[in-house]
Amino acid sequence: MSGNEIFFEQIRSAGCLSYILGCAKDKVCVVIDPELDKADDYVGLAEFFKSQILYAIDTHTHADHSSACKVMRERYGIKVVMHRATDAPYVDLRVEDGAEICFGQQSLKVVYTPGHTQDAMCLLFKDRIFTGDTLLIGGCGRTDLPGGSAEAQYRSLLVLKTLSDDIRVYPGHDYREAVSSLREEKQTNARMLIASQEEFVHFMTSRKPPLPRKIQEALEWNRTPIQGTQRGMGEGI
Amino acid sequence: MSGNEIFFEQIRSAGCLSYILGCAKDKVCVVIDPELDKADDYVGLAEFFKSQILYAIDTHTHADHSSACKVMRERYGIKVVMHRATDAPYVDLRVEDGAEICFGQQSLKVVYTPGHTQDAMCLLFKDRIFTGDTLLIGGCGRTDLPGGSAEAQYRSLLVLKTLSDDIRVYPGHDYREAVSSLREEKQTNARMLIASQEEFVHFMTSRKPPLPRKIQEALEWNRTPIQGTQRGMGEGI
Repeated sequence: MSGNEIFFEQIRSAGCLSYILGCAKDKVCVVIDPELDKADDYVGLAEFFKSQILYAIDTHTHADHSSACKVMRERYGIKVVMHRATDAPYVDLRVEDGAEICFGQQSLKVVYTPGHTQDAMCLLFKDRIFTGDTLLIGGCGRTDLPGGSAEAQYRSLLVLKTLSDDIRVYPGHDYREAVSSLREEKQTNARMLIASQEEFVHFMTSRKPPLPRKIQEALEWNRTPIQGTQRGMGEGI
Repeated sequence: MSGNEIFFEQIRSAGCLSYILGCAKDKVCVVIDPELDKADDYVGLAEFFKSQILYAIDTHTHADHSSACKVMRERYGIKVVMHRATDAPYVDLRVEDGAEICFGQQSLKVVYTPGHTQDAMCLLFKDRIFTGDTLLIGGCGRTDLPGGSAEAQYRSLLVLKTLSDDIRVYPGHDYREAVSSLREEKQTNARMLIASQEEFVHFMTSRKPPLPRKIQEALEWNRTPIQGTQRGMGEGI
């Protein structure tokens, strides 16, 4: 195996996007912007790749969800990385613009991009950039929360504009409207492209993805009436 | 105002997508696939449009999240609509293939599409279709959960293939990889297209969107160390 091979996963949690990026050769990885509810899931995913998480990296101090960094530090001894401008008190490695965060044969380069928060940074990895809330698809992070600055955000977007067009943007959230067309789906959706029922049934029944985590709770809720209340009493539950 | 005007919102909640669709003239609307945590938010959004929610419609019995339908029925007297094949005991209006769900001057047409579940339906509205988990962008709902059938799903996708290519697909989830390119963002992202700092700062500071709902909790969590535990003890929290 050459040292260039990586593994990569984008993980959705509520409205947030987190990432696992790893060096396949040395079996080490980082998690970017981990979300509290999935702390153990990232570790499980790293194990799936037979690898160990070296760093949990927050691109900035999040105001809209709880970071998993300090829990992953406590539970698993994973080092927490943030920009040195952060106020967070549980950071092992404080980095600044131009720094390289190394994991095995791979490394992420820090691009300091204050604006959404004072401690915001993007992480450049070859032809990918992890932009946190600095640059979103079709938008950018708001600048009116604590530590925000529209002036700094403007300058940070200018910095991103100097980077190559071909770099793929992986943001910290995805707020785009989720819409497609039947044309697009007919032409590109693997499930719609299967031309025979036999093949389709084989495709759908040959894999057994894990059950949704809250399936029992959800089905019980969705299949039972509300107990002990009268319809339309406006009491709430 | 002509009777053709509508209002429309796509609401993300955790991994789910819900929709508000309303008749602007008669100030009535429906909510499609409402999610429990946002029950009151849909009502607030309907109020924003000075309208009243007539129906809460579940495209199917969800196995991955809790529907808000019965809560909206209890709290607000909103009628719950589902396909007649459903087992859910709190349904006011059971509909079948070809039925029209009318709200003001507008109506949704039921397209019965079992497969993901036995009670799955899509809702056709002019050049839009709300597909629930029957058709996802680039995928389709799994068929191995209770009530699922790969054979039925295949036939249901065939039904959708007979509809016009130009119909826009609004699914119940969006699991696509969230990725863009710097080229795309430089060319189309409104924030990146603003050419002067002054204009950018005005744009960013002239609107005051509501604060994230859990901002205090999130910031407190993200800015404080873990209390009363030793680093690396593996105790969890």
